[in-house]
Amino acid sequence: MAEIKYEITEHIGVLSENAKGWRKELNRISWNEREPKYDVRDWAPEHAKMGKGMTLTDEEAMTLMRLLKERE
Amino acid sequence: MAEIKYEITEHIGVLSENAKGWRKELNRISWNEREPKYDVRDWAPEHAKMGKGMTLTDEEAMTLMRLLKERE
Repeated sequence: MAEIKYEITEHIGVLSENAKGWRKELNRISWNEREPKYDVRDWAPEHAKMGKGMTLTDEEAMTLMRLLKERE
Repeated sequence: MAEIKYEITEHIGVLSENAKGWRKELNRISWNEREPKYDVRDWAPEHAKMGKGMTLTDEEAMTLMRLLKERE
């Protein structure tokens, strides 16, 4: 079975939490020992399970931030 | 077969484009005729195909924006 190595290199913040305690978080994650990227993803309590989410490069994250800032 | 109805109610911006012309975009999308939400997702040219992505509530999007803004 294939394996994905990952390491949460930085916990940045929590966007929301649902009734079961899963949190949508913004972190920096290193996938397969590569350079860490921004990662927006759902996590079970204690990061025991990983849910769906997406990684963003630094440039994508900053573009997203600027687009959202205009709508604040 | 199940069906998901969606409508892109607002095109906000493009975060990146890959070699095959797929773009990672920020849009407002109404899923199954519900109130539109923010949506970060990969799209084929002309929005012909939808790739992976995630929806964000207004509150999640603004929290994400503020967390990223601190790192600009």
